[in-house]
Amino acid sequence: MDICICPGSFDPVTNGHLDIIDRASKMFDKVIVAVGNNERKNYTFSIDERLEFLNCALRGRDNIKVTSFTGLLVDFARKENARVIVKGLRALSDFEYEFQMALLNKNLDADIETLFMMTNVKYSYLSSSAVKEIAKNGGQISGLVPDCIKDKVYQRFKE
Amino acid sequence: MDICICPGSFDPVTNGHLDIIDRASKMFDKVIVAVGNNERKNYTFSIDERLEFLNCALRGRDNIKVTSFTGLLVDFARKENARVIVKGLRALSDFEYEFQMALLNKNLDADIETLFMMTNVKYSYLSSSAVKEIAKNGGQISGLVPDCIKDKVYQRFKE
Amino acid sequence: MDICICPGSFDPVTNGHLDIIDRASKMFDKVIVAVGNNERKNYTFSIDERLEFLNCALRGRDNIKVTSFTGLLVDFARKENARVIVKGLRALSDFEYEFQMALLNKNLDADIETLFMMTNVKYSYLSSSAVKEIAKNGGQISGLVPDCIKDKVYQRFKE
Amino acid sequence: MDICICPGSFDPVTNGHLDIIDRASKMFDKVIVAVGNNERKNYTFSIDERLEFLNCALRGRDNIKVTSFTGLLVDFARKENARVIVKGLRALSDFEYEFQMALLNKNLDADIETLFMMTNVKYSYLSSSAVKEIAKNGGQISGLVPDCIKDKVYQRFKE
Amino acid sequence: MDICICPGSFDPVTNGHLDIIDRASKMFDKVIVAVGNNERKNYTFSIDERLEFLNCALRGRDNIKVTSFTGLLVDFARKENARVIVKGLRALSDFEYEFQMALLNKNLDADIETLFMMTNVKYSYLSSSAVKEIAKNGGQISGLVPDCIKDKVYQRFKE
Amino acid sequence: MDICICPGSFDPVTNGHLDIIDRASKMFDKVIVAVGNNERKNYTFSIDERLEFLNCALRGRDNIKVTSFTGLLVDFARKENARVIVKGLRALSDFEYEFQMALLNKNLDADIETLFMMTNVKYSYLSSSAVKEIAKNGGQISGLVPDCIKDKVYQRFKE
Repeated sequence: MDICICPGSFDPVTNGHLDIIDRASKMFDKVIVAVGNNERKNYTFSIDERLEFLNCALRGRDNIKVTSFTGLLVDFARKENARVIVKGLRALSDFEYEFQMALLNKNLDADIETLFMMTNVKYSYLSSSAVKEIAKNGGQISGLVPDCIKDKVYQRFKE
Repeated sequence: MDICICPGSFDPVTNGHLDIIDRASKMFDKVIVAVGNNERKNYTFSIDERLEFLNCALRGRDNIKVTSFTGLLVDFARKENARVIVKGLRALSDFEYEFQMALLNKNLDADIETLFMMTNVKYSYLSSSAVKEIAKNGGQISGLVPDCIKDKVYQRFKE
Repeated sequence: MDICICPGSFDPVTNGHLDIIDRASKMFDKVIVAVGNNERKNYTFSIDERLEFLNCALRGRDNIKVTSFTGLLVDFARKENARVIVKGLRALSDFEYEFQMALLNKNLDADIETLFMMTNVKYSYLSSSAVKEIAKNGGQISGLVPDCIKDKVYQRFKE
Repeated sequence: MDICICPGSFDPVTNGHLDIIDRASKMFDKVIVAVGNNERKNYTFSIDERLEFLNCALRGRDNIKVTSFTGLLVDFARKENARVIVKGLRALSDFEYEFQMALLNKNLDADIETLFMMTNVKYSYLSSSAVKEIAKNGGQISGLVPDCIKDKVYQRFKE
Repeated sequence: MDICICPGSFDPVTNGHLDIIDRASKMFDKVIVAVGNNERKNYTFSIDERLEFLNCALRGRDNIKVTSFTGLLVDFARKENARVIVKGLRALSDFEYEFQMALLNKNLDADIETLFMMTNVKYSYLSSSAVKEIAKNGGQISGLVPDCIKDKVYQRFKE
Repeated sequence: MDICICPGSFDPVTNGHLDIIDRASKMFDKVIVAVGNNERKNYTFSIDERLEFLNCALRGRDNIKVTSFTGLLVDFARKENARVIVKGLRALSDFEYEFQMALLNKNLDADIETLFMMTNVKYSYLSSSAVKEIAKNGGQISGLVPDCIKDKVYQRFKE
């Protein structure tokens, strides 16, 4: 069975992330959405919230599993028997950073491949940071994040 | 009347910023220099100092107004009846970030356009951070910032 | 009266070009669409065809004038009393080339400004070359070029 | 059965191309190496030579098929029942061009995905053009192209 | 005597840094490895540790001197009678940042030149941050840093 | 004696080229300006004209030699006992192409280093092609090329 990993912080998940996960799920038998949890990073949403957001957005998708991970991504991939990491690239994202990570991971484990997919152009400008900046200032985030998490994102910035 | 917004942190204003503001003021009836004030950012100069620096550098320019703003830039632009945001791009600046912001703002309000202008090449290397790094180490900032703020910049790093 | 120039080869005009011309026409009193005609370039469509395509696509737009030009763009702009050149940038276009041209033109005539506008993301992948490649191979170009020129583009590649 | 397409001009095939084809063949049940043959391009090697070079370099690889194609790549992919196009990216290659093609192809056929893979860093500087430039000037191309085509490449430039 | 400066944070030194220092030492009579120590930066290793790591990695290299510096790099260069700064560029590094620094330094002291050298491709993915991320998660850093510092890097993250 | 090579087409030499050659001549004992002459390229000026232009612009510079070369640059460098190739990079030039060439040359001869220098910002927009485009259309090229070649450049486009 062909398994791929879609890694990220998902702080919070956006419709751009879902576009990539969705397309990956059509190419692989199973997709593992791997939510990074790095103790030195300051997340806006806790690991439990980020997992809950993804589970709610991906409800009913049988070949998609949502889980958290710590440590090196290649170690996690190997443990899950996944040979492939799938990353979305936005036309305006940081290619250099992603390519550097791909080469680094290749060096750590030559059997694991990183595949890049272009995010749908309509999400070129979209990032988790952008969503938070808009929500905090009361702007419209409909269409940028899954409906079921929208209120929770606004709520965080009212607290 | 055609109004444009020149947004930025201006921490502190440099001669590169003034080059863009100056050229914008020749194309538009009125230029609003909008000084961002984001409570989560650590500025070297307070909002009052940054406004004072700009006012001193732009003294006597009748069609230029200096003011601060918080919240989403498109909301501020709408409130000021400005349909245009003008941003300078240095040959060596972060295009990707600026383009992402432009697309995001277009998505938030389709009626507001972002226009980019190339900064004069002689300021290609110039940024507020560079000015501060040089001043702190006692280097020469004449020609990099307006004369009337030079001493105040040096002063900050002696404190 | 504020006049701007939208220059290009328009070989043929695409919906991406029209997006920029359209937005420029909301910001300036008059837009001059300037079709470059360089004797050393091999165009797929003649200067007459390229002008006809633009006229058909822009019919009824009172503040837009379509014309051809040869020689230096800054000379043409000056002759037309235009102080501004407007260029669209696609998220995936050649920034470096456009910025180099802008600086060069600024050097030739410091009074003429080049302003850049982000093309709508849905046209990120769109170029005249792409349209021709698709048309030649019988692919679908609806939505990529104005309806009134579609058949003429296909026709060229059947000849 | 999962089929992917590895398209290119392969004029001639390099060890960088083989690196990508090889890794794709471990992820997909079948790889179709699709040699573009565009009548308006000037190739150094004929379509028959380019096919022969690939066949010799890939001899004995059961799940790899080498073939030529004309027309739109997405049409070819559909005809071959392939849903995936795999392209190698060199750290120093033209990302923008490749991403533009991927978006264009996505627009032509939303069911066909383009996946990008980083070429092994040791081939970062390698291209078919570089190989030809070196061979023509009598430089060393061992390690840059498969052994079985080396003499034929040198031979072309002695003719 | 021709003296060059190889500046950096070296937090910690990697084999990519050593590649550049080594090649610089073949072109110049003397190389001064200048370890930046900026009180506002949070280093993983103290200035003493970073100097010790470099001294251990460069032991026995007569024309290489390791030292720390604070303040402006051009001031340090002048004091050391060095007219040249040598920086490595990785295929995937931040060109824009480095070029901006080079222009800025040229503006501060026109007599001091910055020369860029391409890092060996096998270190394209390598950075001090990457080394620390791998070490912290128990991954393999052999071949990425000099042997004599390997254990000390692992040790830091066990503390 | 330290010898460096400054290679290029110099079709024609610009003040940007001279800036690099001049600075290289302060760092090396001897600079060899190597004018590429590739039979498959269409030059605007013959090899004799290009050499004459450089000789006139560099008259009286004792440690600079102007010469033509064919074949691989590394072979030429070795023959001239030069271990270093110096290339100028404009803030807006094609980095990727230059870095690819540097890596390729490193692979062909590991003993020859390519060093990059930033061209003076005031020449960021300057290229031989730009000069020719301006001259052909009767624009001003003073300050862009050495005085002694100016009339000859204009003359070519009147013929």
